[in-house]
Amino acid sequence: MATEAFAAADESFGTMDTPPLTLKTINPKVLACEYAVRGPIVARAQALQQRLSADPSSLPFDEIVYCNIGNPQALYQQPITFFREVVALADHPALLQLPEIEKFFSADAIGRVKRILQKIPANTTGAYSHSQGHMVCREDIAAGIQKRDGYPCNPDDIYITNGASPSVHNILKLLIRGKMDGVMVPIPQYPLYSASIALQGGTLVPYYLDESHGWGLEISELEKQLKAARNSGIAVRALVVINPGNPTGQVLSEENKEEVVKFCKRENLLLIADEVYQENIYCEGKKFTSFKKIVRDLGFKDSDFTLVSLHSSSKGFYGECGRRGGYMEACGFDPLVKDQLYKMASVDLCSNVPGQILMSVIMNPPQKGDSSHPLFAKERETILSSLKRRAKMIVRGLNGLEGVTCNDAEGAMYVFPQIRLSEKAKKAAADAGVKADSFYCSKLLDSTGVVVVPGSGFGQVPGTYHYRCTILPGEEKMPAVIAKIGEFHRKFMDEYRD
Amino acid sequence: MATEAFAAADESFGTMDTPPLTLKTINPKVLACEYAVRGPIVARAQALQQRLSADPSSLPFDEIVYCNIGNPQALYQQPITFFREVVALADHPALLQLPEIEKFFSADAIGRVKRILQKIPANTTGAYSHSQGHMVCREDIAAGIQKRDGYPCNPDDIYITNGASPSVHNILKLLIRGKMDGVMVPIPQYPLYSASIALQGGTLVPYYLDESHGWGLEISELEKQLKAARNSGIAVRALVVINPGNPTGQVLSEENKEEVVKFCKRENLLLIADEVYQENIYCEGKKFTSFKKIVRDLGFKDSDFTLVSLHSSSKGFYGECGRRGGYMEACGFDPLVKDQLYKMASVDLCSNVPGQILMSVIMNPPQKGDSSHPLFAKERETILSSLKRRAKMIVRGLNGLEGVTCNDAEGAMYVFPQIRLSEKAKKAAADAGVKADSFYCSKLLDSTGVVVVPGSGFGQVPGTYHYRCTILPGEEKMPAVIAKIGEFHRKFMDEYRD
Repeated sequence: MATEAFAAADESFGTMDTPPLTLKTINPKVLACEYAVRGPIVARAQALQQRLSADPSSLPFDEIVYCNIGNPQALYQQPITFFREVVALADHPALLQLPEIEKFFSADAIGRVKRILQKIPANTTGAYSHSQGHMVCREDIAAGIQKRDGYPCNPDDIYITNGASPSVHNILKLLIRGKMDGVMVPIPQYPLYSASIALQGGTLVPYYLDESHGWGLEISELEKQLKAARNSGIAVRALVVINPGNPTGQVLSEENKEEVVKFCKRENLLLIADEVYQENIYCEGKKFTSFKKIVRDLGFKDSDFTLVSLHSSSKGFYGECGRRGGYMEACGFDPLVKDQLYKMASVDLCSNVPGQILMSVIMNPPQKGDSSHPLFAKERETILSSLKRRAKMIVRGLNGLEGVTCNDAEGAMYVFPQIRLSEKAKKAAADAGVKADSFYCSKLLDSTGVVVVPGSGFGQVPGTYHYRCTILPGEEKMPAVIAKIGEFHRKFMDEYRD
Repeated sequence: MATEAFAAADESFGTMDTPPLTLKTINPKVLACEYAVRGPIVARAQALQQRLSADPSSLPFDEIVYCNIGNPQALYQQPITFFREVVALADHPALLQLPEIEKFFSADAIGRVKRILQKIPANTTGAYSHSQGHMVCREDIAAGIQKRDGYPCNPDDIYITNGASPSVHNILKLLIRGKMDGVMVPIPQYPLYSASIALQGGTLVPYYLDESHGWGLEISELEKQLKAARNSGIAVRALVVINPGNPTGQVLSEENKEEVVKFCKRENLLLIADEVYQENIYCEGKKFTSFKKIVRDLGFKDSDFTLVSLHSSSKGFYGECGRRGGYMEACGFDPLVKDQLYKMASVDLCSNVPGQILMSVIMNPPQKGDSSHPLFAKERETILSSLKRRAKMIVRGLNGLEGVTCNDAEGAMYVFPQIRLSEKAKKAAADAGVKADSFYCSKLLDSTGVVVVPGSGFGQVPGTYHYRCTILPGEEKMPAVIAKIGEFHRKFMDEYRD
């Protein structure tokens, strides 16, 4: 396939009468990559938004509600005051010299920034850092991980990146040598994984989450898919687990995670634990435990087990997506391989320093007794309790609709309802040349302004249809959003009833 | 070669007794990639720095002077006040509500931030932006480009990235389908290009700059190398030009750039213009003209010519490296190919928003009449005039040394002297198992604490030896740095005299 494309490209190339870059002559791996979270439905939403701005009465709704992406502050969630105080002071340390500074900034934000800047070479956020991030930020992140897990964390294992996405790219770039290297990825998945594997030219080895058991991760399914991949000659290198789940919102049990770890150990797989939603848990009786802790609880040391754990400033209750903070902790890596990871990080010099500082503060927020703590605790509780209520509200609303079932959002920021579509709807979609779930989501957008992402962008059992919707519209707006979705759904079902 | 590595990998893989990732089983493209700017000499410098911190009398010098990388603020250059005011206010807009705010921030910084935040959806730097960057930032960058060139710039052609490096990766990822796709790169070059081409698995087609004519770019050399590459079956897709030059510091003439543009047009090559040093010009009588302006002056429209121009917040007089602002302007791209660029940007969601804002402000700094203008103009002039003096000072110092010749640093932040090494020195290097230029640079570090990068990391005519040294140590320190280099050099020449 690639060879064919190449030959065709060379041919058109020789003629010199086409521009140097056309769809026929670009890298076919780029063409093969898909990323639905910002796909055609979002492009359509942006076009509708422009129409609305030009003429507010031109559409049957007043605003576009972006439920396609976990982007809380775009839906007017306010940032955490302490975090922003720290980054602003680090940006403009001249403020620290003002005699009145304590009137405008909390004492612990001032103290934190002074401590961080003092430990940064030349005391500025304007210089490139160490390729893995400033040591003071990595030390603070490591301290936070250690406190979370109860096990030591080495700052040299931390690679701070611009959000978690570049960490995923780097680790997959390191792993994937070609088409015959495989990475196990849950289906449904966050499409960063499929996109990155496609860009690297590897093979995605899917394992299906069990929707009928709350999007459970069955070890028997892992074993079955691993065997099938190996039988077709794929060298399966790694297993991706997203916990809490995206787009599926489940929180894995301790026992389940132990089984996953043992499976990776048994099958010699790198475990890539996407744990960016570790602070987003809404389900009573469930809690987040990191895979690092599970690995250590099972007695595996660095020499026994290789693990990557991902985290990001974009998620949690703070939702600082635009700041692009993130890191991976790479445990148990061969030192020679770590040199290669360092080199890869070095080619891009370093991640943005304000994002590094933010990530370090997220992992070490104000503690009881700190002057910011009361406000910080209040802001956190306000957001998390509201997210919890919104998660329940939307699940209840969706489950009340004909032909729709929706598992609980135990964590993360999404629901992933299944919609049972009629033959007539499927035929209408086919006639329109689009997938049935895209057809549904597109009609939903056109009728309501609510933007969701078709399940096909995340993967789903063939013949089933879903969409991903965030739980992020403001709590006061949520009933109206649910009502709009419900009203649209009833009309849609009636229109396409078999 | 890749196939062999793969077979070997699979073998060790099957046994399951090695960790999932070893040097033998990682992607050989990662192994093949080199990035000398943070290579072994820098690692050694960091180790020496730790020794110095532990015992200041343990080494024959007091401090490590990092001249390996264009990182001005690491060498205590102060940030531009206006830029930092803007990012700090954008980070913590609660400050805008303070009645006393105008006591602490300039009126135009306040006005700028209000305008930008008002145009950002939900008025926050904490939300993901459009994949190419917030429209207000792209509009401001486009306005700056238009003012610079005198030709229109479309904000839809702007892709804001975390520094310029991700732009380079994305464009090369788009271009390179495999080993037989070639990209012409100057030698010496900034190793981001060789590293990125290696990671993508393409072929670097070198063209040599003419050291004896001030690192001139000869069209006959381009033609010769293009022909040679095509004769060996390489599909040459693009030409990279770095102007002002890195590591070579030359500023290309208008006529030369016209010839380059005509060459790309004639040979159907994408022109990748690395113009990140556009504000760093030190040579009387030379000025920066963008390739975009040259292309338009020659009468080529979007439909005639395909061009990428790169810029970054890391360079210029401001040197905001840690903030990771940067962009590429992609002109004349097929709309279908632009969709692919948008998709690639979307996989990483967006670049850091504070960096987007910083880049927009860099392209639209305070103007005469703005309250910040006097301070801004003074800060700019102070830095640029000092850089100019330092460039002259170091070139003069180097040219005074036996066997050393150094072209003028007409622009950028570097000198790239040639050092003529004796047979005895080359033999000593070979005995030590390192390249002769690395041997020299390593001895320089051990004797003086001055960190420079061997020419082999950038490429050089075989049999010649160079190093890259920044012009960035503070002006008050520069005479001492030059004296240290000179003293070391004299001893080295004496020790290794044939």
